[in-house]
Amino acid sequence: MSLLFKHLRVHHVFGANTDVGKTILTTALVRASARTTNVFYLKPVSTGALDDADDRHVQQYAGSSRVQTECLFRYDEPVSPHLAAKLSERPGTPSDDTLATSIADYIRRSAATGTLAHMYVETAGGVHSPTLSGTTQADAYRPLFLPTILIGDTNLGGISTTIAAYEALTLRGYIIDAVLLFRDAYYRNSEYLTPYFAEKGVWVGALDKPPPKVANVDENFTLTEKYYDRLVRQTKDDINSGSEGSTSITDAVRHLDERHATRLAELDSMPRRTLDTVWWPFVQHGLITREADVNVIDSAHSDFFSVYKSPPHSAKPHSTRTTSLTSSSAPLPPSKAKSLLTPQYDSSASWWTQTFGHAHTPLTLAAARAAGRYGHVMFPQATHLPALRLSEAMVNGPGKGWASRAFITDNGSTGMEVGIKMALRAYTKRVGEKMAKDEVRRNEQTEHKERLGVLGLTGSYHGDTIGAMDASPASGVYTCEWHDAKGIWLEPPTVSFRDGEVFISIPPAMHPNHDKVVSVRADNVQNIYDVEGRIGSSLERLYRGYVEGVLRGLEERRKKGEDVPTLATLVIEPLVMGAGGMKFVDPLFQRVMVDVVRSGDASLGLVPSSSAQEDDWRGLPVIYDEVFVGLYRLGLESTGPLLGAYPDIAVNAKILTGGLVPLAVTLAREGIFRAFWGEGKETALLHGHSYSAHAVGCEVAGETLREIQKLKGSEAWKEAKGRWVEGLEGKEAEGKGVWSFWDAGFVKAVSSIDVVEEVMALGCVLAIKIKDDAAGMCFT
Amino acid sequence: MSLLFKHLRVHHVFGANTDVGKTILTTALVRASARTTNVFYLKPVSTGALDDADDRHVQQYAGSSRVQTECLFRYDEPVSPHLAAKLSERPGTPSDDTLATSIADYIRRSAATGTLAHMYVETAGGVHSPTLSGTTQADAYRPLFLPTILIGDTNLGGISTTIAAYEALTLRGYIIDAVLLFRDAYYRNSEYLTPYFAEKGVWVGALDKPPPKVANVDENFTLTEKYYDRLVRQTKDDINSGSEGSTSITDAVRHLDERHATRLAELDSMPRRTLDTVWWPFVQHGLITREADVNVIDSAHSDFFSVYKSPPHSAKPHSTRTTSLTSSSAPLPPSKAKSLLTPQYDSSASWWTQTFGHAHTPLTLAAARAAGRYGHVMFPQATHLPALRLSEAMVNGPGKGWASRAFITDNGSTGMEVGIKMALRAYTKRVGEKMAKDEVRRNEQTEHKERLGVLGLTGSYHGDTIGAMDASPASGVYTCEWHDAKGIWLEPPTVSFRDGEVFISIPPAMHPNHDKVVSVRADNVQNIYDVEGRIGSSLERLYRGYVEGVLRGLEERRKKGEDVPTLATLVIEPLVMGAGGMKFVDPLFQRVMVDVVRSGDASLGLVPSSSAQEDDWRGLPVIYDEVFVGLYRLGLESTGPLLGAYPDIAVNAKILTGGLVPLAVTLAREGIFRAFWGEGKETALLHGHSYSAHAVGCEVAGETLREIQKLKGSEAWKEAKGRWVEGLEGKEAEGKGVWSFWDAGFVKAVSSIDVVEEVMALGCVLAIKIKDDAAGMCFT
Repeated sequence: MSLLFKHLRVHHVFGANTDVGKTILTTALVRASARTTNVFYLKPVSTGALDDADDRHVQQYAGSSRVQTECLFRYDEPVSPHLAAKLSERPGTPSDDTLATSIADYIRRSAATGTLAHMYVETAGGVHSPTLSGTTQADAYRPLFLPTILIGDTNLGGISTTIAAYEALTLRGYIIDAVLLFRDAYYRNSEYLTPYFAEKGVWVGALDKPPPKVANVDENFTLTEKYYDRLVRQTKDDINSGSEGSTSITDAVRHLDERHATRLAELDSMPRRTLDTVWWPFVQHGLITREADVNVIDSAHSDFFSVYKSPPHSAKPHSTRTTSLTSSSAPLPPSKAKSLLTPQYDSSASWWTQTFGHAHTPLTLAAARAAGRYGHVMFPQATHLPALRLSEAMVNGPGKGWASRAFITDNGSTGMEVGIKMALRAYTKRVGEKMAKDEVRRNEQTEHKERLGVLGLTGSYHGDTIGAMDASPASGVYTCEWHDAKGIWLEPPTVSFRDGEVFISIPPAMHPNHDKVVSVRADNVQNIYDVEGRIGSSLERLYRGYVEGVLRGLEERRKKGEDVPTLATLVIEPLVMGAGGMKFVDPLFQRVMVDVVRSGDASLGLVPSSSAQEDDWRGLPVIYDEVFVGLYRLGLESTGPLLGAYPDIAVNAKILTGGLVPLAVTLAREGIFRAFWGEGKETALLHGHSYSAHAVGCEVAGETLREIQKLKGSEAWKEAKGRWVEGLEGKEAEGKGVWSFWDAGFVKAVSSIDVVEEVMALGCVLAIKIKDDAAGMCFT
Repeated sequence: MSLLFKHLRVHHVFGANTDVGKTILTTALVRASARTTNVFYLKPVSTGALDDADDRHVQQYAGSSRVQTECLFRYDEPVSPHLAAKLSERPGTPSDDTLATSIADYIRRSAATGTLAHMYVETAGGVHSPTLSGTTQADAYRPLFLPTILIGDTNLGGISTTIAAYEALTLRGYIIDAVLLFRDAYYRNSEYLTPYFAEKGVWVGALDKPPPKVANVDENFTLTEKYYDRLVRQTKDDINSGSEGSTSITDAVRHLDERHATRLAELDSMPRRTLDTVWWPFVQHGLITREADVNVIDSAHSDFFSVYKSPPHSAKPHSTRTTSLTSSSAPLPPSKAKSLLTPQYDSSASWWTQTFGHAHTPLTLAAARAAGRYGHVMFPQATHLPALRLSEAMVNGPGKGWASRAFITDNGSTGMEVGIKMALRAYTKRVGEKMAKDEVRRNEQTEHKERLGVLGLTGSYHGDTIGAMDASPASGVYTCEWHDAKGIWLEPPTVSFRDGEVFISIPPAMHPNHDKVVSVRADNVQNIYDVEGRIGSSLERLYRGYVEGVLRGLEERRKKGEDVPTLATLVIEPLVMGAGGMKFVDPLFQRVMVDVVRSGDASLGLVPSSSAQEDDWRGLPVIYDEVFVGLYRLGLESTGPLLGAYPDIAVNAKILTGGLVPLAVTLAREGIFRAFWGEGKETALLHGHSYSAHAVGCEVAGETLREIQKLKGSEAWKEAKGRWVEGLEGKEAEGKGVWSFWDAGFVKAVSSIDVVEEVMALGCVLAIKIKDDAAGMCFT
C-alpha cells in the first residue's frame, strides 16, 4: 500500500512522546512548504477538542489557499485514540486496514491534483501510542511505509525517549529522513542528539522554541504567529547572527526535498546498477538485459512487495536537485500522478520461506533480542538458550516419536548434506559390522569400487551444493561439471484434480503392458491421503511389486558384477516435490518405498538389521527432505504421521525461520547419532559452518514455532480446515486428513477450466498446470 | 563482567522515561524485599540535590538495618549525568568501563557478605539517558547484563514510551523480568500494557499511585510513609476488596524471586539437556559426556562470553521454589559467594567471525532495520538496497581492479561451491572453444572420462559441503563417504618466527637432494611479504621450477594415457591456511603458482588464452578462498595487492557480517560471468538458496564494511601498524607491508620461549606451535 510520487512528497510525522511540539513543528513545516508548493496537512486521527488556534496558524500564512487540512477520524475525548474510540458511542471502530486505506486514498486523491505538493501526515502521541484499533501506530502505519520525520523530545529525559522512538521506527524499517526538535539551552538535548544521529546518517534540525503561553488568547495567537513567521522566514544568516545553534525550518524543508529527490534518483538507478554488478541466482542474465525487467523491491509487508516502477517517459534519472519540488509550475498530466510504488503479490512466498508475511514484527524483535544478547557465539561443545530450545522444540515437534538429536546448519542444502553424511556413515558402519565375510570377498573380486548411492524419485531435488545435487537425478537443468548423480530414481505416481475430480496418475513403468500414464479416479481426496487405510489395496500391491522388482533387478545386476550403485539411503521429499515442478506424489507410493527398504530383505540388496541397542533403523536409513513441505507448508507439521512411517533423518528449513534468515535443522534417530560415537575426532560428524547455530537464526526459529502454534489456534485456520473436511480438527496429529487454505471448491472449479490441465492444493500450496505448455503456476 | 549469585538476586531498574516513579517503586521493592532478606539499593550515578525524604522512606521501614543504600558517583546539577559531569569541576569523568567495574565490584562485595539478599540497581532518567561518559545507559550497562525491571510510564503518551523503552532494552538482549507502573484510572496505560506484554511473556505489575504531594514536608512524609506501608503490607485479598486491578508489591518481589530461581534452574539444566538433544558440529560426543564439559554461554559482550558454571557441590538443580530467597537463614560460606557467571575470552573470535566483539549495537540495528523493511525478499531478477549496496561495496572493495560481479550465498562453503562451479564452467567453455581437434580426438582414444580437478595446496580446506571438500585434499580427518578429492595439491613453504627470528621453511619435495625441511632465515618479516621485490630471486626460481615440474610431469602422464586429473582451476587460501592448522604460506610461492598457471603454457597442460573480448583470465581460473583471511582478518582488505596478482574468483564470508549472521559473497571477473551468458536457463548459474541475498545479512554486511572503515581510521589501528613498521599507513593499498594487532616484539619474545616451536602473527591472528606436540593455539 506504500505510495510514492515525484511531484508529491509525503512524510509521516511521528513524535518521541506526546507533547513534544509535533503540531507546532508540523505547522511550521506546512507553512515553510507553502512558500513554494501546495501543502496537504493530514491528521488521520484526532482526539480531544480542536484547537482552533492551531488551524488558524496553519491557514494564516500567506498562500493559505495552498494549504489543505484534513482529519479522517475525529473523537472528542482527549485520551489515546484506542480509548477515545472505545468511549465514543459510534459503532464500528475503524480497523488498521481501514485506517491505512483511508490515508492511502487521501494521498492518491491529493496526488491526482497533479500539482507539486508536500504532505505531512501527523500521528498522535508517541510512536507506539495505540491507534483506534489498539495497534500501536508504528505497526499500524507500517503498510504505508511513508518516509518519516521524528519529532524529538526537548524535555529532561528527552534524549532517551527520542533515541528509543528512533529505534522503534528502525525495528519496523521506516526511512527516517530527519529528527526535528526544539533547542533548549538548559537540557541541550539537541546538542547531544545531533552528533548521535549524524553517526547514523540521520539529519537533526534544532529549532527555536515557541514563546511561553500567555493568558490572553489573542495576544497568544499574535505572539505565536510572530514565532512562526520568524521560524519560516529566517535565513541561515539570521540564524548565524541571532539564535545560535538553531536550524531554519526552511532548511528542514530543503533537506526533506533533497531526501525525496535522492530516494527517487536511487530507485531510478537501481535497475542499471543491479544489471551492472549483481550476479543473480538461477537467472540467465542473457535474457534479462532491460532495466524494466528488474524488479525493484523498495520494501515488503505482509504478502506484498512494494515495487518501484520507473515513471513513464523518464529517460534519465530524476535530478537530485530540488528545484523540481520547491518551485511551482503547471499541474502535471494525470498519467504522471500515478504512484511509482505498487504492491506486488509475493506469489511464491519468496520461494516458500514466508510464514506470517514480510516484516513480521515478532520475528524482528526475536532477531534483535538474540543479536543484543549474544551476537553469534561458537557452538561446538557449547550451548545457549536459542539453540538448545530450538533443538528441543524440533526433536519434540517434527521429530516427535522418533528423533533424538538436532544438528543445526545454515540452509536446506547444507542440512541435506549433513543428512546424507549421517545416512552414509550409519549405513557404512552397519555394513562393516554385519556383512558376511564372503559378501565382502565377492565384492573385492568384482573389483568395483563400492559406489554408495541413494534410492530416490525422479524429479526430486535437494539443494544446490554439489553433495545435495549428487543425491538428485542427473536429468534436468540443475547440474554442473562436478555433478555425479549417485543412485537410482523411480518415476512416482502423482495426485491431481482434473475436471473437478481427483486422480492418481500411474507412470508407464509400473504397467508393463501400457506405454502411457494410467489415471485412477479416487472418490475423494481424503481417501488418497488415508495411507494406512490403503495398505493392502491393489495399488499398494502394484507399488510394492514395482519397487521390489527394481531393487531385485539391481541386486541381480550387482551379482553379475555390473557396475551398479550400492543403495545406502532412501531420500524422498514427502508428498510434494517442490523444485522438481510441484509434483504431488501419491503418498502410498512413498510409504511403500519406506516399507520395502525397511524389510531388510537381502535378496533386494538390503542389509539385515542389527540387534544391537542402537538398532532403531532398519534396512536403509530413510531421509525425509522436508525443507519445502515441512512445518505446515502442507498443513502438517511433518509428514510422518500421514505416511504412517517416520524417517530416520529429516531436514527442515525455509519456514523454520518464518522467512527472515537462513537456518536448517537436521533431525536424527539416536541410532544414527550413535554411528558417529567413538573416541576419536575422525569418527565425529565433522561438519560445521562459521555461523553454525547462530543465535539470531535459532531465536527467530523458536519465535516462528511459537507463532505457528498461535496461528494453529486461529479461526481462519480452523475454517480453512473445515472447508476441506468436517471434524478434521485435531486429527492431523494422528496423520488423518489433508486440507488447504485454498478452498476445495475453488480448486475443483479451476481444474474444470478449459486451458487448465490439472490442479492440486495442500496447505498453503496451490499448483496449476496449464495445458500444452510446460509452464505452470504456484501460489502460496 | 556479568555476575550471578544464587543467594543474591540483583535487578537493574530502568525507566521508560524520567519522572515515571522509578525511585518510588524501587523504594517499595526495597521495603518489600526487606521483609524477608537483606537489601542493597544502589544508585550508581545520581544528579541533583539529594532528596533526604527518599532516603528516609528507604530506611524508615522496619528492618532498616537490613537495607544498605549506596551511590557511586554523585553530581549536584539536576541535569542528565553526562551534562552534570561536564558542568562539574571534578577532573576525569568516569569511563563506561570504570562505571561498570565499580558496579560489579559493589555487587561482588555485597555477595561476599554471604547473606540472602536482593539488590536493586537504579538507573537515571530513561533507558537511553546518557550516563557520565555520554554513552546511553542501555549500552553502557550492557556488559553487566543484569536482569531488568522496566518502570513503565503512567502518563499520557506513556504506552508509547514504555513499549519503545522495552524495545530499546530488547535490542540489547536484556532479560526483562517485569514491567512495573502505576495504575491510572483515566489513561489506563496498565490495562493496555498488561496483555500487550503478556503476549511477549513479560509480567506487568500495576501498583497504586502515591498520594498527591502536599506542601507540609512532615505531613507529606507521613502520607507517603502510609502509602508505602499499604503497598508493602497489602495482600492479594486487600487488593481484591480494595483497589481493583492493582498488584501488590509483594507479588512483584515474589515474581522476581521466581524468575531468579527459574533462571538458575534453567542454567543448571542446560548441560544435561544439551547432552541429550544437541548434535554438535565437529565434536566427538563420545568424548564429551560430562555436564561440566558443556560450555553454557549465558550471554556475550565485546570479546567475552559470559559462562555459567554450576555451583560447587550442587548435585541437583536449583529449586524453582522461592523459599530459598525469601526466608532468612545463616550466612553462606564464602566459597558459595562466587559468581556463577564468569567471563571467558572468545579466543577464536567464535571461529573467526567476530569483528567488533559480540552484541555490537550497530549490527543489531542494521539487522532490525532490514528485518523491519523487508523481512527476506526473493532475489532472482529482483533488487533491493541492502543486496545492491553490498554487491557494489564488495566489487569496489576486495574486488577493486578485477571483479565485476557479486554472487551472494549463505556461508563460506556454499560461496566456495559457487566459485568452483564458476571456474569449472569457465574452463570447460574455453576448452570447448579452444582445444585443437586432435587434442579432443586423443582424449577420446585414451578412453578416460575427463576428470576435472583443482590445483591446490596440501593442508588447504574450503568448507564442509561435499563439493567444497572435493576441492580439498583427501588427507586429514575432514572427510566423508562421498568425499572424492579432485585434483593435486602441493606442499607449500611456510613462514614463522623461531627464537626471535623469521624463517621460510622449504618442504623436502622442492629439494630433491634433501629429505627434510630446509629453513631460510629472512632479514625481516616485511621483506618476505614484499612479493614484488622477491620476483627474480633464487627462491622464486626454485618455486617456479618446482611448480612447472609438477605440472609438466602431470601432462606427461596424461599424454601416456594415465588416469590423471585435468586441472581446471587453481584454488588457494592466500597467506594463511586456516582450518588446515594456521599455516602461514610463503606468499611468493602462491604468487608463483598464479604466474605459472597464467602462462597458459600448453606443455604444462594449460589451455592457451582466448583473444575474445571476455578473455580477462588466462590459463586457469584462479580462486582465492578469502573466507578466513579476507576483510582485514590479516590486516589487509584482500590479498591481491600484496601478492601482486589478483584472482579471477574470490570468496568472502566470516567477517563479512561482522560476526552476526551467515552470508557469503563470491566475486568474479566479467569473463567468468560471461561464461554463463546465453539464451537458455540451462547455461545460467543455477545455484540459489531459499534465503539467497537475505536482506538482514546484506544490511548487516553493509554496516560491517562501514564500521571497518571507521576502525581503520582509529588510533589503535594506526598504532598497531606503527609498531610493525614505520610509515606503513596507506601503503597496504599498494600491497606493501604487513602488520598485526599483536605486538611484533611480543611475537618474537614468544618464539624464543623454550617449549614454543614457532610463532606467527598477521592482522588479528596469532598462531603458536608448541614443541613435540600436535596441539597449537590460535588467538585473535
